[in-house]
Amino acid sequence: MDPKEQLIAELTELLGSKNVLTDATALSVYECDAAPSFKAMPDVVVFADTTQQVSDIVKLANKSNTPFIARGGGTGLSGGMLSVQGGIIIALNRMDRILEIDIENEQAVVEPGVVNLLLSQAVQAQGYHYAPDPSSQKACTIGGNIAENSGGPHTLKYGVTSDHVLGMEVVMPDGEIITFGGEVEEVPGYDLRGVLIGSEGTFGIVTKATVRLTRNPQAYQTALAVFDKMDDASNAVSTIIGAGIIPAALEMMDTLVIKALEDAFQFGFPLDAEAILIVELDGIEAGMQNQTDKILEIFKQHNAREVNYAKDDAERQELWKARKSAFGSFGRLAPNYITQDGVVPRTRLPKVLRRISEISEKYQIAIANVFHAGDGNIHPIVLFDERDADQCERVEHVNKEILTVCAEVGGTITGEHGIGVEKMDYMPLIFSPADLRVMANVKEVFNPTGLCNPGKIFPTAESYQKLGLQPEVDNITQVATDKISR
Amino acid sequence: MDPKEQLIAELTELLGSKNVLTDATALSVYECDAAPSFKAMPDVVVFADTTQQVSDIVKLANKSNTPFIARGGGTGLSGGMLSVQGGIIIALNRMDRILEIDIENEQAVVEPGVVNLLLSQAVQAQGYHYAPDPSSQKACTIGGNIAENSGGPHTLKYGVTSDHVLGMEVVMPDGEIITFGGEVEEVPGYDLRGVLIGSEGTFGIVTKATVRLTRNPQAYQTALAVFDKMDDASNAVSTIIGAGIIPAALEMMDTLVIKALEDAFQFGFPLDAEAILIVELDGIEAGMQNQTDKILEIFKQHNAREVNYAKDDAERQELWKARKSAFGSFGRLAPNYITQDGVVPRTRLPKVLRRISEISEKYQIAIANVFHAGDGNIHPIVLFDERDADQCERVEHVNKEILTVCAEVGGTITGEHGIGVEKMDYMPLIFSPADLRVMANVKEVFNPTGLCNPGKIFPTAESYQKLGLQPEVDNITQVATDKISR
Repeated sequence: MDPKEQLIAELTELLGSKNVLTDATALSVYECDAAPSFKAMPDVVVFADTTQQVSDIVKLANKSNTPFIARGGGTGLSGGMLSVQGGIIIALNRMDRILEIDIENEQAVVEPGVVNLLLSQAVQAQGYHYAPDPSSQKACTIGGNIAENSGGPHTLKYGVTSDHVLGMEVVMPDGEIITFGGEVEEVPGYDLRGVLIGSEGTFGIVTKATVRLTRNPQAYQTALAVFDKMDDASNAVSTIIGAGIIPAALEMMDTLVIKALEDAFQFGFPLDAEAILIVELDGIEAGMQNQTDKILEIFKQHNAREVNYAKDDAERQELWKARKSAFGSFGRLAPNYITQDGVVPRTRLPKVLRRISEISEKYQIAIANVFHAGDGNIHPIVLFDERDADQCERVEHVNKEILTVCAEVGGTITGEHGIGVEKMDYMPLIFSPADLRVMANVKEVFNPTGLCNPGKIFPTAESYQKLGLQPEVDNITQVATDKISR
Repeated sequence: MDPKEQLIAELTELLGSKNVLTDATALSVYECDAAPSFKAMPDVVVFADTTQQVSDIVKLANKSNTPFIARGGGTGLSGGMLSVQGGIIIALNRMDRILEIDIENEQAVVEPGVVNLLLSQAVQAQGYHYAPDPSSQKACTIGGNIAENSGGPHTLKYGVTSDHVLGMEVVMPDGEIITFGGEVEEVPGYDLRGVLIGSEGTFGIVTKATVRLTRNPQAYQTALAVFDKMDDASNAVSTIIGAGIIPAALEMMDTLVIKALEDAFQFGFPLDAEAILIVELDGIEAGMQNQTDKILEIFKQHNAREVNYAKDDAERQELWKARKSAFGSFGRLAPNYITQDGVVPRTRLPKVLRRISEISEKYQIAIANVFHAGDGNIHPIVLFDERDADQCERVEHVNKEILTVCAEVGGTITGEHGIGVEKMDYMPLIFSPADLRVMANVKEVFNPTGLCNPGKIFPTAESYQKLGLQPEVDNITQVATDKISR
């Protein structure tokens, strides 16, 4: 038997044949995540049901020197779960049990395959929810959220996944089962819990997590304002934050998004407006009206042309509909789009938006902007037609220049989508060789063979060339690339 | 010249003789922190003024294989800055410049020697402060806070140091200067910023930090309640949190603390009361009264015997005076005391307090309790007379049993004081050999020679023996102890 056949036989013995996929058609479902421009075919997909099984699979992978990658909902946008060197994809969707709900201590213990929104629904009756709310929350899993340290529109007030995960059981890349963190906020010793969260599946496989539950706000107040000038909208954002108000969400959409929305859904927004801003407050009902009044006053000061204010939950849903429909409307603008993801210091938003508009002109590639303005997390939507090779090449330049601008103003190259395979080439924009070497050394502690989710995050010699930098052939790239190539 | 003389000559050449202390009297100031039961004499103390100097000192230390430790305000309580193997103490108090204040982006760049409270004072006029507020905030430094991941009474609402430090410049244990994190909240790649914060000076020396500034609350409301029964007070805490109210502080004191306070200061509290609870709200003024009314109602429901409510800032300061005077009053109870520090899930507070009272009876050692009830961070004050050897031995047992109880209920052995030398023996209570091995491996990445703050955090073979466990002679203790012994 050749080694691959041998491995598949062992996996089948361990899990039963119905939990081992090798058929090309079945495997093709697992060749990409939600960003279909990256593809890679695994050799085999297995379904694990218990921590012990995950550990056993990982040990078999090690024995046969085979790469392995955990997969949750497959909703990632940076190719983090792609089997770029083939090997085993360990699907964790069947490990979807909520093991414990402890309302009094405001926490729950869940398996990694629990879908984000289902956890919130499970505690809804008791008046709680799980705070991190990525846009994919109907499909993405808590395990995937931990790998990517996911956020969402409510990150501004509630923080990211790392703020809501107290402890984890992890199958390490050698198959050992280790616990990080615990049931209380403060754990002595080094915060390995924190470094594991957001390590994009390269440090091990989370098989259980203790997460915080957040009490539902008593009330919401939501307002939408239309601005003729983007600068006015940006300044309104700064003024709101400067007034000491911390909205639960502060979302902005630019003129191209407005156009797409009107084309597709006819909300009735003016096509000559440069920006729409949605602000939501949540919390204790008393006193909220005063803050809303203050926000409405700020809108006025900054020349808002039109302001809508939700008087009840139905109207609130109506105001959010525009924002939530945005991604569904981009098809009106171009056959394909890439959702870029960067973060900039909030005060540099106006400058960055102007630069993005210049980049769009320079390469004649339309770019729409929809973003979490409160925390400076921008999402330029780069619009193109993949059938046009010349456009595709210009899009490459556009991506590179947008991320370069983010880095230049003291920001960073991804806010919530991760590095994965999509952005490894851009890592040198924000990390020096020395920084990367420390990261690579830490990776080696957790994942010394490099078999656990190889070929991600770290730039290669080609990455430096693409950026026009001297290729670095020191131990960064050695650790990052040589070690993982089989 | 012997190697030590050689090193001192080189340090003197680098820094000038006034910045190099070798005189025994001068050195004795640096032999302990604020917990005087641990002492160790450094060979030399140096004052650094720049990052480059810190790097040069570290390189000289490496060249001569000499341990080195950074020191801030010396206000630690776990012996984290003790030179237990001699060597160089690098005092950072002269690196006390606030380099940049950026109110619009709500952040500041500071050197490590900046005293915590002075940063808040520097931004007070603009309506901001630096949120982490350890009790030692008049003397402790931001660098020390980062090493210990310090909290304070306002941790419940505002989080710990890690939540307020965006980025750091660090002199690594080999002298290299590396940047972790950045100016924005989200940084891609592994969260090494997070793992560095709270590593108790064993991963490198922070020479610059970008920290978040927090807008001052518009208003405070503060109430103090006296309870006949501790259980009623504990239940009031659970009910307040359960009602969705997040106080800025929620502090409890037990009957022995009340007795000490009355002996020393005559606040007029009833000596037969079992507990005093102080609750403070902060935030936007509007609506706060409703929450306060709710809290006063909860006090009543839980049989509060007496409730005081601050109607203005003077009355607020008056209510806090009792809490802030507590540590000054313990001298009335015994010649010596140890401030224990543990964390337990909030709902297990009543059980843990009962166990502490049993431990006190068993060993005939009085224990007072003052603690951050909202986040389950207990501070049992273990009272004794150090001149009585038998008492001292019983105190050892008391400490061990209190921490064992914390670990047993799913809590942990330190909330905010750190492990240092004080608690390394107790680490096996909460970490398995496998957990500790991962930590030791990560430490080795940052600090491969072990020269940077040696002899801390990790348990030794004797620690296991003291806990009545099989001594572990595998690579945990090898990494933790053998490597660092010269």
